[in-house]
Amino acid sequence: MSSPHPLDPLTSEEIQAAVSIVRAKSKENLHFNIVSLHEPRKAELSPWLAARAARLKPGRMADVCVIAPGGKVADIIVDLNSGTILSWDWVEEVQPIITMEELQLVEHVVRLDPMVIQQCELSGISKDEMHKVYCDPWTIGYDERFGSKARLQQALMYFRPDLDDCQYQYPLDFCPIYDADKRAIVYIDIPAVRRPLRRETPINYHSAAIHAQGGYRQDLKPLNITQPEGPSFTLDGREISWQNWKFHIGFNYREGIVLSDIGFNDKGIMRPIFYRLSLSEMVVPYGNPEHPHQRKHAFDLGEYGAGYMTNSLALGCDCKGHINYLDAEFAARDGKVRLIKNAICIHEEDNGILLKHTDFRDDSVIVTRARKLIIQQIFTAANYEYAVQWIFHQDGTIQLEIKLTGILNTYAIAPGEDTKGWGTEVYPGVNAHNHQHLFCLRIDSNVDGPKNTAFMVDAVPSDEPVGSANNKYGNAFYAKRTKLATTGEAVTDYNGATVRTWDLCNTNKLHLYSNKPSSYKLVSREVPNLLPKEGSLVWKRAGFARHAVHVTKYRDDQLWAAGRHVPQTSGETDVGIPAWIGDGLEAIENEDIVLWHTFGLVHFPAPEDFPVMPAEPMTVLLRPRNFFLNNPVMDVPPEKSVTPSQVAVAAAANQA
Amino acid sequence: MSSPHPLDPLTSEEIQAAVSIVRAKSKENLHFNIVSLHEPRKAELSPWLAARAARLKPGRMADVCVIAPGGKVADIIVDLNSGTILSWDWVEEVQPIITMEELQLVEHVVRLDPMVIQQCELSGISKDEMHKVYCDPWTIGYDERFGSKARLQQALMYFRPDLDDCQYQYPLDFCPIYDADKRAIVYIDIPAVRRPLRRETPINYHSAAIHAQGGYRQDLKPLNITQPEGPSFTLDGREISWQNWKFHIGFNYREGIVLSDIGFNDKGIMRPIFYRLSLSEMVVPYGNPEHPHQRKHAFDLGEYGAGYMTNSLALGCDCKGHINYLDAEFAARDGKVRLIKNAICIHEEDNGILLKHTDFRDDSVIVTRARKLIIQQIFTAANYEYAVQWIFHQDGTIQLEIKLTGILNTYAIAPGEDTKGWGTEVYPGVNAHNHQHLFCLRIDSNVDGPKNTAFMVDAVPSDEPVGSANNKYGNAFYAKRTKLATTGEAVTDYNGATVRTWDLCNTNKLHLYSNKPSSYKLVSREVPNLLPKEGSLVWKRAGFARHAVHVTKYRDDQLWAAGRHVPQTSGETDVGIPAWIGDGLEAIENEDIVLWHTFGLVHFPAPEDFPVMPAEPMTVLLRPRNFFLNNPVMDVPPEKSVTPSQVAVAAAANQA
Repeated sequence: MSSPHPLDPLTSEEIQAAVSIVRAKSKENLHFNIVSLHEPRKAELSPWLAARAARLKPGRMADVCVIAPGGKVADIIVDLNSGTILSWDWVEEVQPIITMEELQLVEHVVRLDPMVIQQCELSGISKDEMHKVYCDPWTIGYDERFGSKARLQQALMYFRPDLDDCQYQYPLDFCPIYDADKRAIVYIDIPAVRRPLRRETPINYHSAAIHAQGGYRQDLKPLNITQPEGPSFTLDGREISWQNWKFHIGFNYREGIVLSDIGFNDKGIMRPIFYRLSLSEMVVPYGNPEHPHQRKHAFDLGEYGAGYMTNSLALGCDCKGHINYLDAEFAARDGKVRLIKNAICIHEEDNGILLKHTDFRDDSVIVTRARKLIIQQIFTAANYEYAVQWIFHQDGTIQLEIKLTGILNTYAIAPGEDTKGWGTEVYPGVNAHNHQHLFCLRIDSNVDGPKNTAFMVDAVPSDEPVGSANNKYGNAFYAKRTKLATTGEAVTDYNGATVRTWDLCNTNKLHLYSNKPSSYKLVSREVPNLLPKEGSLVWKRAGFARHAVHVTKYRDDQLWAAGRHVPQTSGETDVGIPAWIGDGLEAIENEDIVLWHTFGLVHFPAPEDFPVMPAEPMTVLLRPRNFFLNNPVMDVPPEKSVTPSQVAVAAAANQA
Repeated sequence: MSSPHPLDPLTSEEIQAAVSIVRAKSKENLHFNIVSLHEPRKAELSPWLAARAARLKPGRMADVCVIAPGGKVADIIVDLNSGTILSWDWVEEVQPIITMEELQLVEHVVRLDPMVIQQCELSGISKDEMHKVYCDPWTIGYDERFGSKARLQQALMYFRPDLDDCQYQYPLDFCPIYDADKRAIVYIDIPAVRRPLRRETPINYHSAAIHAQGGYRQDLKPLNITQPEGPSFTLDGREISWQNWKFHIGFNYREGIVLSDIGFNDKGIMRPIFYRLSLSEMVVPYGNPEHPHQRKHAFDLGEYGAGYMTNSLALGCDCKGHINYLDAEFAARDGKVRLIKNAICIHEEDNGILLKHTDFRDDSVIVTRARKLIIQQIFTAANYEYAVQWIFHQDGTIQLEIKLTGILNTYAIAPGEDTKGWGTEVYPGVNAHNHQHLFCLRIDSNVDGPKNTAFMVDAVPSDEPVGSANNKYGNAFYAKRTKLATTGEAVTDYNGATVRTWDLCNTNKLHLYSNKPSSYKLVSREVPNLLPKEGSLVWKRAGFARHAVHVTKYRDDQLWAAGRHVPQTSGETDVGIPAWIGDGLEAIENEDIVLWHTFGLVHFPAPEDFPVMPAEPMTVLLRPRNFFLNNPVMDVPPEKSVTPSQVAVAAAANQA
């Protein structure tokens, strides 16, 4: 087997090697929190990507984070080639990402805790029902009463009378706080007004429940999708080639899928477009101001990890046609390797009409169907699932589509209680709070090379009044382009009325015909304001979500919009994007830049979303504009193509 | 054969009957402009739809428009059951819709006109090349020099050196005006600065051009979609049933597809949702202020007709899987029947994940795939194609997706000429002007009955400041609902920052759990401002496009947002929606209401769009909220469903 691509995730052997090297250095009983690829520096990797045979392949390094007894945290870089430790930093008052193993532990502790048992009794749950008590442990987020020193989780409590009942139908009204170092409940938040358990009729989506309601519908006929000659893509390790596209598919504990070295073969020339694309961060603020719901604002990537939480698609593959899979491997707490089989699926789909035109004169026609390539992962963040699809189109468009499904986070509501507009009673006793899902897309652009410039583009009427010489009939409008010359100027919001977009341009390369710079346009239409107010806890902690777009100058270790260690950040000092932007004076014109785009949706729950949500999709597009000389898909074989002269010949033959 | 459904389009026999009845009444040589179903009055149809056996079926009437010599226009209603004429109105100073036949005539006249031949010579086209001169005839729109009395078209001129060259590559710079009654060119608009024909290298998408460039790509493997047991829908005449949905599929010359009597079988009860859905109107304003480009703002439905321009899908079917087709029949100018074979296609598609949830505790999982039903037509408006898909989802969502493809409208540009930002030089000599595509969706709501109320809904932070007792941490936010009680209050715009939506509610029917009214939510995210300014020619003529939403009280003949006869309206007096709204004082709370939604996109062309555009989709959703008691798709058979107890049993078996 050939040695890994420099951007391949660590192999299981490399994970084991990193663990051994770290273990050899310390006598303490270390829990491994992160053992992941430390990506090569761009200055080293870029030349290799451009001329692989001529350059030395960048070495392999591991990014390691360990938790030692007493909750001490160390960030470590391991050089895997030399077997040495490059750096070992004990970091104070930070909490690294919560692992699935840590989450799993809490429920057992909760069930045995006397204070919790007492609260359950007050809620109407007897001691012999304690095995029916469950919790979704979340990091505490930030709670000023406890600070950042102790590693804390908040346990969102539920009762599940039958093992197969919906986990979220019987929420309990109190919230234990768990200390991961002590492995104990250290506090319980108890609301002033109590909401005892309501034992309403269960509602469920499992087959027994459906059969009790009359069974599954019978009128859905099979629809088969087959690819008898296999897929149109080829995989070389983790590098994929498809319909002129070529890129590398990475994966890590945090961002999940990472796509790098994205280029397009434009008539024989491989043109670079993006150095790296990933989901960098997320935040899901809930809108109920009652204590302690302000703590419900999960940073799903920085606090839990889209990789750590990813589904094994071996447990239920969700695609049709020819599917290729890639596995994921992580270090477990004990340093052993945890395998997620089929973490990523890769497949093609038909995508309807790619182009069509009919000449009304003679019915000469061309119609061509589109194909798309989908790189997908699905991760489960406790109640919710996020199906993340990176979709490549033949015409040079890259689409990030995220489908939201799963189950609402729920809280108890007493009979007759008013939601006060902060939620919806989706089922008796079930209050689903208002929330947002805000995603931060990191775009490390490389449009015809690393030196790019960002512009904001608004569709606006001419400034000239109706009736004036230059706008007599008032119809003049244009694309107003605002150059984002500094990081401060680039802090920009969405404008729906002007259908605002942002262009990533190479101003050094003007289009032969249009004389406009080679560019990719960010088209994103679901861009709500961050609804927690300026100065609020969420606003402070999720600096990246304050604006739709930020642009920074590229720096190797600025990958995560809310910083490296996200749990229990207070937001009192800037971390991530606001810290990197600082005074906003840094020049970003014609530089190696990164655009950070926060988009998402606002979810006011409805009963249709319960007890499981029909998937809701949202989309962001990156579209080539003035990049290709002309339409790049004219050589896709058409379904039908008849020219005017062919129509004329056929008509003459018919008459003869 | 049974008698038609009251909403079925006129049969060919009915068209012939209407023509005969009208002919018998007049000795003049009438040109038939419209012979279409005059839909039954709602007061008569609704009771029949609700209780078909018990009621008399509404009779059949034809809506006829004829043009008599001298350009006289008559609107006629024919009672087909009695064979009588119910009304015959000669209408002054209006121009009815332009038919394909009228468009076809112009090119021949243009080629023979001495003034045009002279202008062609000035452009560099010799007399013996006149057969290579083409035009796209558009209605003149409105030109104050000519008014509304004469029936005029503007001929957008092109040269096509080879019969198979792209129609839009060689635009000419002058614009003849054609009088349909005189069948002659009556004027030519000639720009002050001339742009002679540029004989640049042809660029094309036909197979000869692709082969000259190296041929079609070879690496796209087949992807087959089959439905061995047939489709999951059933058609009874033009009424379709699929996955609890039931509705009628109409079609007319103007709106194209019309969906009526849309209901959802909710556990045995057929609940009404929409009385009628259609695209009511469109406008495509171009943003170049130079004369006479202000006239380029096609009302594609009211001026040309999405039915009249619809493609025969027999010429190239654009779908996969099992397809059903419906034909369309129209009256030709001479009263004969014009058949469009396969005007509508109906098929299903797989739609990815419908719902998924995994419990992180034990990997118990459910995953269910979605299916969708698509009712589609594709119409060609000269250069552009619009693929209109009415998509029904299993979860109660209705989606209108429109894909834009075809070819850019183009104008001449001289070497070195500046576009001044009003367009893009997409190829040497080809200036594609900025433009918008604005669609007006007419929603005749019937959510659990005809009495509905519209609300505007904004996602907003709490009014309480951060740190106050009711918003201590500043995270409070809610759905601010503004009741639209009068037609004036309902004139509303889009707000991207609050991800504004509009609800169509039945306030008489509150949800059993949420206590909120049964409703359908309009979710639309591509809602640019009308870019021609207030007071501009387009603003005056396209009153419906001034705002994202208007709501009117239902009236039988208020179907078309810009009025009945759209060509050559001046906009000086209100027609369509602004006229119906008037002083804005009409109460629309808990009434039979119609919501009109204008949405669309702004297109700043790029070379990628030439010589044919890769399809660009846009979408509007109508989603059930507080309509169903809970998730309505739990009975869709899952791909995989494993409960926690099944996981436990399997684990125990593995250990045994």
